[in-house]
Amino acid sequence: MTTEVRIIPLGGLGEIGRNMTAIEYGDDMIVVDCGGMFPDPEHLGVDLIIPDYSWVVENKGRLRGILITHGHEDHIGALPYFLREVDAPVYATMLTRGLIEVKLKEEGDLGHVQLETIAPRKPFKVGGFKIEAFHVNHSIPDAVGFAIETPVGVLVHTGDFKIDYTPVDGQPTDFAKLAELGDRGVLVLMSDSTGAENPGPTPSEATVTETFKRLFAETKGRIIVSTFGSHISRVQQVIDAAAANGRLVMPAGRSMIENIDMALDLGYLRDPQGVLRGLAFQPQIEPERTVIVATGSQGEPSSAVARMAQGRHREVDIESGDTVIFSSYPIPGNEQAVYGIINKLFEKGANVIYGHQAQAHVSGHGASDDQRMMLNLVRPKFFVPVHGEARHLVLHGRHAESMGTPRENIVIARNGAIISVTQDHIGIAEKMAYTDVFVDGHTVGDVGPAVMRDRTILSREGFVVAVLQVDSSTGALISEPQLVSRGFVYMGEADDLMRQASRRVTEALSRNGKANHRVEVTKDVLGRFFAEETGRRPMILPLIVEGEA
Amino acid sequence: MTTEVRIIPLGGLGEIGRNMTAIEYGDDMIVVDCGGMFPDPEHLGVDLIIPDYSWVVENKGRLRGILITHGHEDHIGALPYFLREVDAPVYATMLTRGLIEVKLKEEGDLGHVQLETIAPRKPFKVGGFKIEAFHVNHSIPDAVGFAIETPVGVLVHTGDFKIDYTPVDGQPTDFAKLAELGDRGVLVLMSDSTGAENPGPTPSEATVTETFKRLFAETKGRIIVSTFGSHISRVQQVIDAAAANGRLVMPAGRSMIENIDMALDLGYLRDPQGVLRGLAFQPQIEPERTVIVATGSQGEPSSAVARMAQGRHREVDIESGDTVIFSSYPIPGNEQAVYGIINKLFEKGANVIYGHQAQAHVSGHGASDDQRMMLNLVRPKFFVPVHGEARHLVLHGRHAESMGTPRENIVIARNGAIISVTQDHIGIAEKMAYTDVFVDGHTVGDVGPAVMRDRTILSREGFVVAVLQVDSSTGALISEPQLVSRGFVYMGEADDLMRQASRRVTEALSRNGKANHRVEVTKDVLGRFFAEETGRRPMILPLIVEGEA
Repeated sequence: MTTEVRIIPLGGLGEIGRNMTAIEYGDDMIVVDCGGMFPDPEHLGVDLIIPDYSWVVENKGRLRGILITHGHEDHIGALPYFLREVDAPVYATMLTRGLIEVKLKEEGDLGHVQLETIAPRKPFKVGGFKIEAFHVNHSIPDAVGFAIETPVGVLVHTGDFKIDYTPVDGQPTDFAKLAELGDRGVLVLMSDSTGAENPGPTPSEATVTETFKRLFAETKGRIIVSTFGSHISRVQQVIDAAAANGRLVMPAGRSMIENIDMALDLGYLRDPQGVLRGLAFQPQIEPERTVIVATGSQGEPSSAVARMAQGRHREVDIESGDTVIFSSYPIPGNEQAVYGIINKLFEKGANVIYGHQAQAHVSGHGASDDQRMMLNLVRPKFFVPVHGEARHLVLHGRHAESMGTPRENIVIARNGAIISVTQDHIGIAEKMAYTDVFVDGHTVGDVGPAVMRDRTILSREGFVVAVLQVDSSTGALISEPQLVSRGFVYMGEADDLMRQASRRVTEALSRNGKANHRVEVTKDVLGRFFAEETGRRPMILPLIVEGEA
Repeated sequence: MTTEVRIIPLGGLGEIGRNMTAIEYGDDMIVVDCGGMFPDPEHLGVDLIIPDYSWVVENKGRLRGILITHGHEDHIGALPYFLREVDAPVYATMLTRGLIEVKLKEEGDLGHVQLETIAPRKPFKVGGFKIEAFHVNHSIPDAVGFAIETPVGVLVHTGDFKIDYTPVDGQPTDFAKLAELGDRGVLVLMSDSTGAENPGPTPSEATVTETFKRLFAETKGRIIVSTFGSHISRVQQVIDAAAANGRLVMPAGRSMIENIDMALDLGYLRDPQGVLRGLAFQPQIEPERTVIVATGSQGEPSSAVARMAQGRHREVDIESGDTVIFSSYPIPGNEQAVYGIINKLFEKGANVIYGHQAQAHVSGHGASDDQRMMLNLVRPKFFVPVHGEARHLVLHGRHAESMGTPRENIVIARNGAIISVTQDHIGIAEKMAYTDVFVDGHTVGDVGPAVMRDRTILSREGFVVAVLQVDSSTGALISEPQLVSRGFVYMGEADDLMRQASRRVTEALSRNGKANHRVEVTKDVLGRFFAEETGRRPMILPLIVEGEA
C-alpha cells in the first residue's frame, strides 16, 4: 500500500485569489477549487490571472474530480479555462453549482462538463477518496469545507470560513462535525489564513443587522447600499431592514440582479413581505421608501455605484439627501478606486457611510480567534496554512505553534510545492516551476514576461519608430529617417525634436551604415539623444525598408 | 480701500499632496507652500505632479513672497520648478530652510533664490501683509502655521498640524497664540483636513515612545525600524530607546542619512550618549546591540528596507531572528507595495511589527478632535478646509458646522477656485481652468492628456506598426506590408498571425488603395482582425513609405 499522500498547492499561497489545491494518493488525484485572481496595476492589460495547473493537465489521466468549496470568483473563476483542458466531474453544493453554471454559460458550451450536486454531511466517493463536506460560514451561502479520507489519514480543507454564532441563515459553521473529525483524528488541516493578522474573533453578521436597523430607521432620504453581488446574506439583511422600515429594495448592477434572481429561485434569499422591485420603478417611489442595493463595493469602474458617482448611471442620479452605505471594505489594492468613488459621492452632496467605524460590514474570513477555534476543534497532526499572502501564512502558522503544534509539523509552502505526507512526517518533497498564467482577451497564457516587459516600458516612456529607407543595392539611406512616436512626447509639438533626431541618425549612419550595424547604431543614437533632451528612455524600434534610390 | 481679500487654492484640495495656496490683497500676492504630489499608477511614467500655478506666473509682478509651513515634499517639492518661473523671497523656519536648500541644490543652481529664515512669534512683513508664524506639532520639527494680517481681517493657515500634549521636542502646538488670535478675531481659518475621517484625537507621540521602550527591551536580536527619512522626531525616539537599552543606531538609506546629518548639525536631533554609528560598523556589532533606522516605510522600491527585503542591500541581509518595525502606516495607494515588502521580510524569517495594533506609529495629522480644538481656539468667522480629498474637506466642514459655524460661512472649494472674502461674506467668485502638471524626466508640462491616453492604450494592448511601401507614382503596394508589434503578442510565436494580418491588408488595399484611404483602411482591417483573433485592441500605426516598384 502506498503510505504517502501528496498535497500540491496550485494557487492562493503567497497571494489572495486563484485558490487551487491538488491532492494525490496513489493513482488518484482530486482538485479543491479552481479560482481566478484579479490583476494588479502592474499586470498591464491582463484580464485575469489563473493558477498554473499545467501539472494537473499533464497528469489528467489521474484526475478523478474537482471539489468546489463555494461560488466566489477566487474559487471558481478559472474553471472555464481548466475544463477546456481536463475532463472530470465537478462537485459543488446547490448554490455553488448554480453560480458555476452561470459562469460556464458565459464562456460558451457547457456540453461535456459533468456537474454533481453535493450537500454537507452526505459523504461521497471520488476515486479512492471518501469525501464529506461540512458547512462553514462565509460571505456567501452554501459554503463548505471538505474532509477527505485517504488510506494514510484524513485531510481537512476548510475552504474560506469564519465562525459566526448568529449568522443570517441561522446555521453556524458545523462545529459538531469538526469536533467529530478531530476526535477520530485528522492527519492534515489546510485552513484559511486570510484573517491571520486580525486579533480576536471576526464579528458576527448580527453587527451588520444592528447597523442596518439603526441606519434605515434614522435616515430620511434615499438609501443606497453597496456590496458584493454575490453576498446573498448581506442582501437578505438589506431586505429585512427595508421591510421593517417600510422601504422597498431595488437591485442595481448586472451581477447583483442576476445573483438575487438566482438566490430567490434556489431559495437562498427570502422576500416574505415582497419588498423587491425592479430599478425601473424607482422614479415612482418616494426617496424615504427607497433602498437601492448596488454593485461596486470594490470601486470597479463599470459597477453601478461607480456609474452613479460619475453621473453615468441611466436610472440613478446622486443628489444631496442621499445616503450611500458601503457595506464592504476595500480589498488591498482597491483603496484608491473605492475612495475615489466615495469622494465623488461626497462632492455630489451625498452622505457616505464607510470604513470600520460605520460597522456596516464584517469580514467573511475568520480572524485569529476563529482560526484558533478551527485548530482546536480539528486538532490536526500536521498543519498547512492556505489562502493568504506570506505574512498571513506565517502568522497562521504561529497561531498553531502557540497552541502546541510542533514547528516541524507546520508547513509554510508556496504554489507549486509538492508536500509529501506520511503518518509520521510532513515535508516539501519537490518544488515545481510555477508561473503566473494571464488571460488577456480570448487567449490564455500567450501573454508572458516578454510582452509584460514591453508593456511596462511603453506605459512609462512610449516608443519611437524610425523607418530607414535604404537602397537595396548600396545599403545607403535613400531619404532622412521617418520618426513617429506615441506616448513619448506630444507629436504636435515635437517636430523640432524629431527633425534633430532624424538628422543625428543620418549623420551616424553615414559614418557607420553597415547593414548589420544599422539597427544598433540607430537605437544607440536615438536613445542617447532623447535621454539628453528629455530625460526619458522611449522604446526605439528601427525598421529597415529596402528600395531603390 | 480694497475691501476684498482673495484666497486661491492651487493644490491640495480634492487630493493629498502638492499643497499650495495663493492669497491676494489689492496689488500684493503671497503664496503658502509649493508642494509636489507622487503620481498614482494611472499616471504612467510621470515622476512628479506639481500644482498648476500658471495663474501666479501670469501675475508674478504682484508676487511678494512664498511662505513655507514645513519641509515635507508635499509642501516644498514643486519649489525648484516654481522658482524657475517666479522671483520672490522664500520664508521658512531654520530646519525647513535647510531642507529647501538641499532640494534646490539637487536641481542645480541656487543663485537667484532669496531664502529668509523666520521663527515662530517673530512677525515680519511681506508686501502689504503682516505675517506671524506659530508653532504646530507635525511629523517633522520646526513646522508652523501662519497668521496673515490684511486690512480686511486676519487669515490663519494651519499648515499640517496635530495637537500633541507630549510631543518629542516638548513643545506643543502654540495654543496661547491661537487663542490670542481667536480673541482678536479671525476672518478666515484654512485648516488641515487630512485626519477628518478619524474620530477622537490623534494619539500622542508618547505612545510610540512607550512602544519602542517595550519592544527594544523585549527583543533579543537585531532591530530594524523603518520610517520616513524626514521624521526627525521619530529618529529621536529610536535614538533614545536604543540608548536606554544599550543599543547602537545605524541609519540606512540616502535620505535618512542626509536628514539625520542635517538635523544633528542644526540641533534638531540630539545624541547625548553617542549611539549613532555608520552602517559600515554593523558587522562588528552584535545583533542584540544593533538598531538600523531605515527608509522605506511607504514601500518605495529603491528604499533601504525594500532592498533588504529583496536581498539587494549591500550591507544588510535579513535573517531569522531579525525584528523589523514599521513605524509608519501606508499612505492610501501604497498598501500593496508596503505589504509586498512585509511579506518578503516574513518569508526571510524576520518578525515584522506593523499596522495599527503595533502602536509603533501615530499620524502627524490631527484627527477630528484636533480639528475641533483648532476651530475652537481660532473661532473664525469663515472656514475653508484645506489639504484633503473631497471626503476629508466635507467631513471637516461638518465638524465646523456642528460647532456652530453657519453653513454659508464654510467654503468647500477645489483647486483653481478664486474665493472672495469681505468682512461680511465668503464665496467662490470664479473657477479657473486647472490641470495636472506632470514632471517627466527633465521637462515640466509637456506630457499632457494626449500622451497619457497613448501610454494607457500601449500599457494594456501594445502596438502594431504596419509599414506600407507604395509606389510613388501609382500608389500601389510594392510588397507585402511589414508588421512589427511590441506589448501585444509574443512576436517569437506570432509569425502566423502577422502573416495573415499582412495578407488581409494587401487584399483590402487592392480593393481600396486610394492614397487618402490607405491609413484608415489599414487601421480598420488590422483592428478588426486582431480583435477577432485575440480579443485585444492594440494601437495600430500605419506608416507609408514611398518608393519605386
